[in-house]
Amino acid sequence: MNGAEMMALAEELYPLCRSITGDGVRETLRTLGRWNPVEIVEVPTGSPACDWVVPREWNLREAWVKSSSGEKVVDLADSTLHVVGYSVPVHEKLSRAELDAHLHSIPEHPSWIPWRNSYYEEGWGFCLPHAQRAALPDEEYEVYIDASLEDGHLSYGELFLPGRRDEELLVSVHVCHPSLANDNLSGIAVSTAVASMLAGRDRTLGVRFLYVPGTIGSLAWLERNRERTGRVVGGLTLTCLGDAAGLTYKRSFAGDADVDRVAKAVLADRAAQGLGESELIDFYPYGYDERQYNAPAFRMPVGSLMRSRHGRFDEYHSSADDLSLLSVERLEEARDVVLEILGRLDRNRRYRSLAPEGEPQLGRRGIYRALGGGGDPAALQYAMLWLLQCGDGSHSLLDVAERSEMPFGQIADAADLLEEHALIDRS
Amino acid sequence: MNGAEMMALAEELYPLCRSITGDGVRETLRTLGRWNPVEIVEVPTGSPACDWVVPREWNLREAWVKSSSGEKVVDLADSTLHVVGYSVPVHEKLSRAELDAHLHSIPEHPSWIPWRNSYYEEGWGFCLPHAQRAALPDEEYEVYIDASLEDGHLSYGELFLPGRRDEELLVSVHVCHPSLANDNLSGIAVSTAVASMLAGRDRTLGVRFLYVPGTIGSLAWLERNRERTGRVVGGLTLTCLGDAAGLTYKRSFAGDADVDRVAKAVLADRAAQGLGESELIDFYPYGYDERQYNAPAFRMPVGSLMRSRHGRFDEYHSSADDLSLLSVERLEEARDVVLEILGRLDRNRRYRSLAPEGEPQLGRRGIYRALGGGGDPAALQYAMLWLLQCGDGSHSLLDVAERSEMPFGQIADAADLLEEHALIDRS
Amino acid sequence: MNGAEMMALAEELYPLCRSITGDGVRETLRTLGRWNPVEIVEVPTGSPACDWVVPREWNLREAWVKSSSGEKVVDLADSTLHVVGYSVPVHEKLSRAELDAHLHSIPEHPSWIPWRNSYYEEGWGFCLPHAQRAALPDEEYEVYIDASLEDGHLSYGELFLPGRRDEELLVSVHVCHPSLANDNLSGIAVSTAVASMLAGRDRTLGVRFLYVPGTIGSLAWLERNRERTGRVVGGLTLTCLGDAAGLTYKRSFAGDADVDRVAKAVLADRAAQGLGESELIDFYPYGYDERQYNAPAFRMPVGSLMRSRHGRFDEYHSSADDLSLLSVERLEEARDVVLEILGRLDRNRRYRSLAPEGEPQLGRRGIYRALGGGGDPAALQYAMLWLLQCGDGSHSLLDVAERSEMPFGQIADAADLLEEHALIDRS
Repeated sequence: MNGAEMMALAEELYPLCRSITGDGVRETLRTLGRWNPVEIVEVPTGSPACDWVVPREWNLREAWVKSSSGEKVVDLADSTLHVVGYSVPVHEKLSRAELDAHLHSIPEHPSWIPWRNSYYEEGWGFCLPHAQRAALPDEEYEVYIDASLEDGHLSYGELFLPGRRDEELLVSVHVCHPSLANDNLSGIAVSTAVASMLAGRDRTLGVRFLYVPGTIGSLAWLERNRERTGRVVGGLTLTCLGDAAGLTYKRSFAGDADVDRVAKAVLADRAAQGLGESELIDFYPYGYDERQYNAPAFRMPVGSLMRSRHGRFDEYHSSADDLSLLSVERLEEARDVVLEILGRLDRNRRYRSLAPEGEPQLGRRGIYRALGGGGDPAALQYAMLWLLQCGDGSHSLLDVAERSEMPFGQIADAADLLEEHALIDRS
Repeated sequence: MNGAEMMALAEELYPLCRSITGDGVRETLRTLGRWNPVEIVEVPTGSPACDWVVPREWNLREAWVKSSSGEKVVDLADSTLHVVGYSVPVHEKLSRAELDAHLHSIPEHPSWIPWRNSYYEEGWGFCLPHAQRAALPDEEYEVYIDASLEDGHLSYGELFLPGRRDEELLVSVHVCHPSLANDNLSGIAVSTAVASMLAGRDRTLGVRFLYVPGTIGSLAWLERNRERTGRVVGGLTLTCLGDAAGLTYKRSFAGDADVDRVAKAVLADRAAQGLGESELIDFYPYGYDERQYNAPAFRMPVGSLMRSRHGRFDEYHSSADDLSLLSVERLEEARDVVLEILGRLDRNRRYRSLAPEGEPQLGRRGIYRALGGGGDPAALQYAMLWLLQCGDGSHSLLDVAERSEMPFGQIADAADLLEEHALIDRS
Repeated sequence: MNGAEMMALAEELYPLCRSITGDGVRETLRTLGRWNPVEIVEVPTGSPACDWVVPREWNLREAWVKSSSGEKVVDLADSTLHVVGYSVPVHEKLSRAELDAHLHSIPEHPSWIPWRNSYYEEGWGFCLPHAQRAALPDEEYEVYIDASLEDGHLSYGELFLPGRRDEELLVSVHVCHPSLANDNLSGIAVSTAVASMLAGRDRTLGVRFLYVPGTIGSLAWLERNRERTGRVVGGLTLTCLGDAAGLTYKRSFAGDADVDRVAKAVLADRAAQGLGESELIDFYPYGYDERQYNAPAFRMPVGSLMRSRHGRFDEYHSSADDLSLLSVERLEEARDVVLEILGRLDRNRRYRSLAPEGEPQLGRRGIYRALGGGGDPAALQYAMLWLLQCGDGSHSLLDVAERSEMPFGQIADAADLLEEHALIDRS
């Protein structure tokens, strides 16, 4: 799935009216189903989701504010951001002042529509450009929100690509934001591309893709999959991957999990190749669903890959976070980095030498240059020697790559060769 | 107890003739009793004190050196430093040369009287300014020391302010120096102020104040309180807190005990607020009673707070260490730092989250801003999120403060709020 | 054994035709026997040596290449390097082109003879200066190698100097190189000097000296001495110690073993005394027999002391590595550093205080300055205080030297004094 296809997917999903529940999410997941066999899981209202409870399902059909002349001065049909998420139905007439108590705008960016929600406290409201709000004359207004907030379901998407072993990797994106492109159609598109490209490949570890409403969605998955959390040896949340900033990797809570070390190495390798600088930041308890996966009871080693950080770019949670923020090249770069991180995690393993008493005789097995006395060995042989020397069962390929300062791929190739010759196996 | 009161206390104690035993110490402890209910503990001569034995009690009444003309050229009445501590009684006539073998002076500071002792080896001597010594004519002298060195007691003071738990904090000062102001009337005054200010406060941990003759006094306490040593979760010796140098904290033997981390943070916070630079130094086996508390068999995590270091300031152990070295402001600063260190240790605790599966729903408990989608959370909420994320039972509030780089007080406030809402408890 | 004697030993050994087996090694070991009672161990062909098998014994008597005029253009009698090690017997006539397939030379250094081997793959060949090879006319050549490759033995030398305890130190040098001076007659000479100087000394730890053919020799020793490997608390391989480069210490696999810390300190002390800079490098799985001793199944803490690194100096494995590379002073310096490293390891020990409750009363035992109240204590006393303070049984003298930043010798002297006075013992 190339960048143009990722961009087309983002464009297709952009108009849908998503929230943490409702048909917008369902429609989004169905669209993803055209690329990968994403299963849609429906969790009934009232179901436990760890410390939380699945809320009522919210669906929004029509909403507007009419001036006294009958003109629709604000209309859901123009932007999914116009209506505060989880607004209750309303149809009444109000004075300008009464209306204003239900309006949200951004004074610093008077032409942008903010995005607001009131998931867990009943209310209603409209979002609009501050310039427009300021210009609303002092007259009577008619407000109309045709929404339902009723028992229903929370929907999330799940796709599992099995591996040869029980352990698995996790890729999770939030799917609850309406017409916001960077946050997080970019993450949805990259995850979809990664899944479609991994689908046909042989792999050691399973890879699980989750498309979840933020917080409540990952908690709902965790509630129903507690026994799986221990199998996850590494993972990523993907968010804000289309804007012009360089890549940033946010570490897991552990800070030195394999995924953290692999992400660091992958990004450093790219920098060394002149493919752009990136940033590593420590875990902090704000952001996206990595907070839930890393919670004390689960401690899944899940980091987060992003460009701009949530809340740290001007267009964040506003109508300015539109499709123009994304680029084909940046989505592809993010996809490649995710594939490389997952790929290294898949090849990584703890191992032990099966000939730990000194250096085994490689020559007898046909994997040593026969004529002794020469200069430095070739890289593959050197990688084999490092692996054998470290092979006490406590080291992973990643450990050896770090200690030897050799490329991970070279270490992994050497490990495969040694395994073929029965000189190492998994520890 | 403010700085002026601390200064007045130092002035009152200054003339007393203290040593490691004797009435000078008793009188000092009785004076402290006017501020706090300090218990005076009397340990008989010959009692074991860990590897040591409590020595005979020494009391000095009168002492002088007379010239052939009958003039007292050196007189105890002028300075408690004139007589070598633990001098045995003497009354004889000597030549100038014979006398000189019993004299001590400081050539580099010809007008200062040094302070010398001979606790554990019998002898006698006089200390005097080097200029005076050099000018003594070659004639016969009469020396007289009316002292007693007899079975009696070693006296130390103890004050315990109980807390709600069995663990306790320790504050220890040495009280064996005669008319030396910085070393250690300053420490005695600060400890007295801290005790008087803590007396009325609610606290979690007990606080024990010890007023002990150096080395032998703390060893006598340890001998009689072995079972208590394990309850001490942190402590300080206080010494040389009145001079003009910045504050120095000497770490406990462990080096990274809670008290070390708290002291470092408190001093760093003061520097960040422009309240002056300070220094952190590693433990070394010289100094004051922290050496005994940190001994291998006890390993009580006791650091030391000081300004100038023992032996590292010109006036050290001489008559120049007089009351002019102290200032009201510096005593108050030291008092405040000690209170802050003890206060943070008192609030610190290991804890665990009672809702460890993901982030608990703060909104349901009324402690979350209800309207989602906004910018960075307020500091209190951020502190709560850090606490909940770290709440696997292995973290203390101090750990969370360090990891989050948030002020300890903010973390502790958030912890109190979470505890009120049954979201965390002590682990 | 002084530098001149070491140099004379190297000169005597230089002409011998050594390989991994054969009479050249035997003659070498017999020569060492004149200095120290080195036992010659004979391991039969076909014996297991960990993952390897002892090869057939190779002995070379005569070898040459004759031009069509009957002139010996290459002759073993001129240099032991002329014949590829482990060449099979041959006597035939070849064209210039056929001959060339069996020739080895170094184009970058046209006047040097390279050193080549074919231990584990049958073949034969000659090594010669590139200039000579290039000038060989296109005619018929007669080649003759009178060698035997038959069942026999691998020979290695072993010398054990017992200590008072079961633990031991290891010094290992490779003895398989023919007329190469720096690599490794220098190591052989230094090891011989060290052994002869240690022979008469009292010591705590045994010291084992191995003189082994590279790789296969140390593996043969390991195969027969598995139960001893656990007793080795530190060791060194010695190699390339005569050339003009500064000293380099290569760490053991562990990286922070006692031998690594001692070697670091010894070299730092020399630098501080202006005796020359040195380098510390991490373990890597190339070099000499330290690879075998540090293998996963053994993990003997063996580092390596050298000047130039194998493969990193121009003359490496060529006729230019001749006796002119060595100097008396550099051999003596290396000898002294090895003696110092072994000496500190011998004195080092874990210990515990026998008076761990506070600081014991040194005065009662006559090891404290009697008059209290003075300035900083003397270094010996300070070292005693450090030892007593650290004496919880988990510290070694090396730990205390590092923590106190005092010279190891001072700490060890203080430890001996404390042990005499029954204040510490081994833990």
